This record gives sequence, structure tokens and C-alpha cells, in this order.
Amino acid sequence: MSTRGNELRIDEKRFWETMTASGEIGRGRTTGMSRLALGDDDRKMRDLFVGWCREAGLAVSVDGMGNIFARRRGREDDLPPVLVGSHLDTQIAAGNYDGVLGVLGALEAVRTLNDAGIETRRPIEIVNWANEEGARFNPPMLASGVFAGVFDHQWALERTDLSGKSYGEELKRIGYAGTAPVGGRKIDAYFELHIEQGPILDEKKIPVGIVTGGFATRGMKVKIMGETAHTGPTPMDRRKNALVGAAYLITALNEIGWRYHEEGGKSTAAQLEIWPNLPGILPEWAVLIFDFRHPTVEGVERMKAEVEAAIPEAARKGNVAIEVLERRAFGDEAFDPACIDLIRSAAKELGIPAIEMQSQAGHDAYNMNRICPAAMIFAPCEKGISHNEAESMKPEEAFPGVNVLMHAVLARANR
Amino acid sequence: MSTRGNELRIDEKRFWETMTASGEIGRGRTTGMSRLALGDDDRKMRDLFVGWCREAGLAVSVDGMGNIFARRRGREDDLPPVLVGSHLDTQIAAGNYDGVLGVLGALEAVRTLNDAGIETRRPIEIVNWANEEGARFNPPMLASGVFAGVFDHQWALERTDLSGKSYGEELKRIGYAGTAPVGGRKIDAYFELHIEQGPILDEKKIPVGIVTGGFATRGMKVKIMGETAHTGPTPMDRRKNALVGAAYLITALNEIGWRYHEEGGKSTAAQLEIWPNLPGILPEWAVLIFDFRHPTVEGVERMKAEVEAAIPEAARKGNVAIEVLERRAFGDEAFDPACIDLIRSAAKELGIPAIEMQSQAGHDAYNMNRICPAAMIFAPCEKGISHNEAESMKPEEAFPGVNVLMHAVLARANR
Repeated sequence: MSTRGNELRIDEKRFWETMTASGEIGRGRTTGMSRLALGDDDRKMRDLFVGWCREAGLAVSVDGMGNIFARRRGREDDLPPVLVGSHLDTQIAAGNYDGVLGVLGALEAVRTLNDAGIETRRPIEIVNWANEEGARFNPPMLASGVFAGVFDHQWALERTDLSGKSYGEELKRIGYAGTAPVGGRKIDAYFELHIEQGPILDEKKIPVGIVTGGFATRGMKVKIMGETAHTGPTPMDRRKNALVGAAYLITALNEIGWRYHEEGGKSTAAQLEIWPNLPGILPEWAVLIFDFRHPTVEGVERMKAEVEAAIPEAARKGNVAIEVLERRAFGDEAFDPACIDLIRSAAKELGIPAIEMQSQAGHDAYNMNRICPAAMIFAPCEKGISHNEAESMKPEEAFPGVNVLMHAVLARANR
Repeated sequence: MSTRGNELRIDEKRFWETMTASGEIGRGRTTGMSRLALGDDDRKMRDLFVGWCREAGLAVSVDGMGNIFARRRGREDDLPPVLVGSHLDTQIAAGNYDGVLGVLGALEAVRTLNDAGIETRRPIEIVNWANEEGARFNPPMLASGVFAGVFDHQWALERTDLSGKSYGEELKRIGYAGTAPVGGRKIDAYFELHIEQGPILDEKKIPVGIVTGGFATRGMKVKIMGETAHTGPTPMDRRKNALVGAAYLITALNEIGWRYHEEGGKSTAAQLEIWPNLPGILPEWAVLIFDFRHPTVEGVERMKAEVEAAIPEAARKGNVAIEVLERRAFGDEAFDPACIDLIRSAAKELGIPAIEMQSQAGHDAYNMNRICPAAMIFAPCEKGISHNEAESMKPEEAFPGVNVLMHAVLARANR
């Protein structure tokens, strides 16, 4: 039996029905999704996904970070598996494609191999990474980060959401605190299909992006420390308003982003926690999470130097102290040339137009790229909009990417 | 029997024990207080206060905003009462003197009149105004505002805290949704004793401030409207980050405050609510509450013109829209000359050093001043610190103000 052939295609109807079923779990405002990590809807989606995997004859295991692995045996089953997947959690205001496409695309690929009776030399494992978005538990890509040794397991379990609930508690609550070790095992390769979350493929009407690497990204979590006092009688020169210090830093970050705009750079302040955050009293402290990105490592390092200078300057202007609590970095590494080549070849053999491109968003694939050969495939999404309820893609824009994913994985699993 | 006499003094020991009992209810961090309006500790404090008032033979009534009135009969009991009080709620990080001194000082004055068997021509009512701080339900001075016709009763009941609970629900929950009409009755005069919340009396070592009026204050609540999007691929020129827009406005406000610093002006951004306020997604909207103050109405109007210009400028810089949701004003009016004169005379007759001064904070007395003759007495607090756990005063700094309050009220009630 052929283990590779241009005739093999996914079942488009079945695949889109599976995608649509996902879109019913965790409806947000309007027609969007709001399926935050380790919430009740995430649990429902996980249950549904696990059921589908078992129906497909896969052996399901869950690790101590809640990552779900669904394993299809290989002929030489002791060989390290080819891992393929993405994430089923979403942002609070999101669509049904970001992450979901990659997990359910992997499932469809495996179902198609099953239907065709195709065995592979190596095992294939579908993975659903937990808390990719970081929308509830910062930082994003947390659970793949622990898998890849980037983050400490215990530290990750102690991350809390804005209401103070910990990752570990919530994982237990939804019944997905698994017993499998987190990482520490050999992976042959990792493939991830994802929507682009940018406008390039949609504008060019090209169905597949071959992702060669990412924008170099740096993130920080800083604490701005002021002092409570009455908003009335306290003179300006005795005030230490943490919110004012945060505001000076946010505007400085925004201006740094603009200075690098022409080079493709950008900066974001996305989350600010303030205490007490009540009328009549000067805020005592604030915690700001921000990041900045650039197409090149050299560029992001120039941005970083400006950010590092902006922090004490904002502290001075706001008469507060600012302490950097956490720093993170991702996106610097290029993906594996052999994996990229498998994607390029698959697209070519299937006659699907494809271009090479960089990812501007963070992905679990960056973490995996540290411990095994990894690569990504992009599919178009309308106007590049994501992390917004307007995120959208047509079924026919999704199918080519899933077929390319399937053939690349198949080729790698038979290597 | 004399109804006025230099021999009449409060019972210092009893008064300070009453103050100390208050300091046990709603302990915050360290030794401070955290007795937010309509919380469980506010209920406990109200229950204790009502018990004390009943023990003093006073008739207690509660109005539809939760304001508590404790009435001491007058010889001509149909005459409008002299009202005297302040508030028992505190900020989240506060001391035991802000507001509390005025309510329990009024109680001590009435107890002293009782002990001396002194009747007055007019009835005297002690009042505990609900939600003076506005720390849970914005705006501050909410319940006295409804009493004075400044705010609509139904609108006030619908104010919500940051967790979405409404004033009306919480008032019912703690059992203080009373049946007495809110306002609409004639009040002869209003007196309020309060800590200064500024450094002047403490620095000058003068025990009594005769408050002639307030800093002119303007407050606004604005909504900054952006759009969610991915923090990664979205180019700078397509971003509408509501947090960035808010930050430009906050820094502009801060700079306006500094431009008026030499004249005694100040500005404050104290509360910022952001949505979704999660990593990875651009904030869609933010709601900012801020105010600015100046010793003169003319000065605050100059500040206001700068603020009004700063709003569209911040919207432009942040590529967002900004809408003013609410505006408020207080502090413009001077207190009643006759009431001020009673305070001045009482201090003089008691041989207590006193100076005239302006209040820089908001007080329920401003609302009352709209519907009846009103005036205030200030007592020193250490370094002028309040809305902070370090708020402090010595007992002997409190007693002179309470004695002056008692004699001014006594004189007015016998008018």
C-alpha cells in the first residue's frame, strides 16, 4: 500500500462538521468564541476532543500540565513520535479558528490515514496544548513551555488568573490534571497548522503559508509601586500615583512601537492590574504586562534598549518605583529546514500555491522547536483579523492547509 | 439650667473608647481600616452605632439610601432639626478617623448634653451618611447627594461596584434599605467635624480649623473605545488600543495638575477599568474616573478648559474614541456665614486656638450646603495623611474639635 500519494485527501465535510461542533462550545459575544483555558467550556471541548480521539482508535494520555496527547501507533512503535497539533483554548473575544484549526486539522489527518488503512513507521501523536493563549494564565504558551523545559512545572501550576485562582487548582477542578510526565521524552518532529492572524495570505489569495520562523518577541511584566493617599489635599509633589507611572510607561512603549513601525516593529500594553483602583484614593501599585516584536533579533534588541531606558524615565515622571518582575522571549529561532522542506514538497506535490513567511504571533511551535525539529503551516483568515469575534475563514480556505499538514506529517512519520 | 456654658465638656474617656470600638470593625492591612460602604463590616459598624444611639435615647430612622438619622427631641419638636454628622464608611486602605470622628463626635456631644440634662429648642439629629467615600460606588458623597437633590434616587440605587453588585441590592443585603424618604424635609442647619486630611493644622499645631469653603473640584468619568485585535500581527497603524488611549489621557491630566501646582491645583486619575485586560489581546474599552481641584472656581475652570482639550488629543494619539459619560462638580460654594460664626464663637469662648481654612477634599457638607446653612470644623491629623493606613491622630487632638462642635450645635439648636 502507498504511504504517500497525491490521491490522499481529507474528508472536507467531516472536517468542517468537526470544526463547527467546536464552534458551539464557549460562545462569546455575538457569534464569537470565549473559551478561556481551564474554564468549564474548555473542559467540555476537551471531553469532546478526547471522545473523538478514542473513536479514532487513539490512545489518550494527559500530562501534569493538562496537555492532551492522542497516539496513533507506528509500525516501529518505540521510535519517537511525530507530534502534530495546536490548542483548543481561545481568547476572551475570539473566533473558532485560532488554535482549533491545528488540533482538529491534525485529527482529520489521522482519521483520513485510518480510513485509507495507511500505517506509518513512526507513531503520530495529536496534541492539544493547554493555555496557549495565556488569556487567563500569563504567560501564553505556558504548558508547551513546561513540556519543552522553558518553564518550571511547579512555577507554572502556581500561575493565577485575575481572580486569584491558580492554574493547578483549575486544572484539577476540570479533571485534566493528568499523570503523564510533562515532557522529558524524545519527539521526532513537531508540525502545527494555524491561521495566519495577519493579512498577507488573504490579500494575496494564497492558501498556504510555509512558516520559516517568527518575529523576535520580548515580553515583560513590571510592577509600578506608589503610595495610597487622598486624591484631594495631597499636593502634586507629594503624590506617588502608580497609575500615573504606568501611564507614562504605556505611552513610551507605544511611541517605541511607532518608531519601529516602518521596519515591521510593534509594541503592546495589553494588561494592567491596579490596586486599589477606587475613586478617592491614589493607586498604590500597578502590574503591567507588555511586549514588543520585530522581524529581526537585531531589531528587537534595539527596541529592548529603548524600553529599558523608558522604564526609569517613566518612574521618574510618575514619581514611582518600577521593578521588572518577569522577562520572556520567543520567536527568535528559525524553524527546522528539513521540516520546512517537507511542507514545501507537500504543497508542491498537491499543486497548492504556497509562500514562505514569518509568524508575527507566538505559537507553541516555538517552544517545541527548542527540543525537536519543528515547522508551521499558515492558512488565511479574513483580513488577518483574530483575537476578535470577527475572526473568520471560509471552509475552502482551510482544506488546503490540512491536506498539506497531513502529507508533511505522513512523510516525516515514514522517514 | 444653662443651655450654653463654658463649663460643658465632652467625656474624653467615653468618646475615645467609642472611637476605639469603631477601630475594631473592618480592620484592613497592618493597623488600618478597610470598611467599604455596604459591606459586612459597614453593617456591623451601623448596628453598633444604632445601638449606641438607642442607648442615648435617640429615635433612629433609616432612609431609602441607607442614611441613618438618630433624633434627639427639641422643646419645640416640630421645628426643623439641626443635623450633625459625617460618615462611618472608609476607603479600602484607610484609618479610623476620616468620617468616623464626625459621627462619633456628634454622638459624644449628644451624650454630653444628655448627661448635663440640657434641653434644646430645636431637635438635634445625628446623621451617618452612606457611601461618602465612593470607594465602592462611584461617585462619592452619593447618599447625601440624593438627600440634597443633587442625584436621582433611582440612579443612585443602580450604581454598581467593580464586581457588578448594585448599591440597591447591597443596601438590602445588609438590612439598611430604610423606609424614610430621602431628603425632602426642612433642615435648620448642618454641622460636620472632620479630620483635615491635609498638613496645615498638624504643622501649625492648631487644634481647630474653621472651614469657610472648599477647593473647586470637577470630576469626570470617560469611556475610551478601541477594538480587540491580536497583539502580534496587528500593525501599529491598525491598532485601537483603549489602554493606550487611556494612558495618553492620564499623562495629560497629570501634566495639567503640575501646571497648576504653584496655584494649589492638582489632578488625579484614580480608577481605570479595562476590558478584556488580558495578555495577547488589545483592550477594547476602558473607563477612567478622574478629577481636578483648584482653590478658586476661576482656576478650576481654566483647568477644565485644558482637560477638555486633552480628551480629543489623547483620543487622536491613541487612535481611539473617548466619550464623557459623567461630569460632577463640588466644592465651589462657601459655607454659611452664620454657621461659621457659631464655630468661631464656640472656639473663642472655649479658648481653643482656631484658624480659617479651605477644605481640599469632598464632604457631605457640600451637598447639605445646597439645601440648608452648613459649616465644617477640621481637626488635625498626623502629617495630613489620610486614605492610607498611616492615617493617625492623638486623642488630645480630637477633643477640642468635638467640644467646639458641641457648643456650635447647642447654640444653633437654641436659636
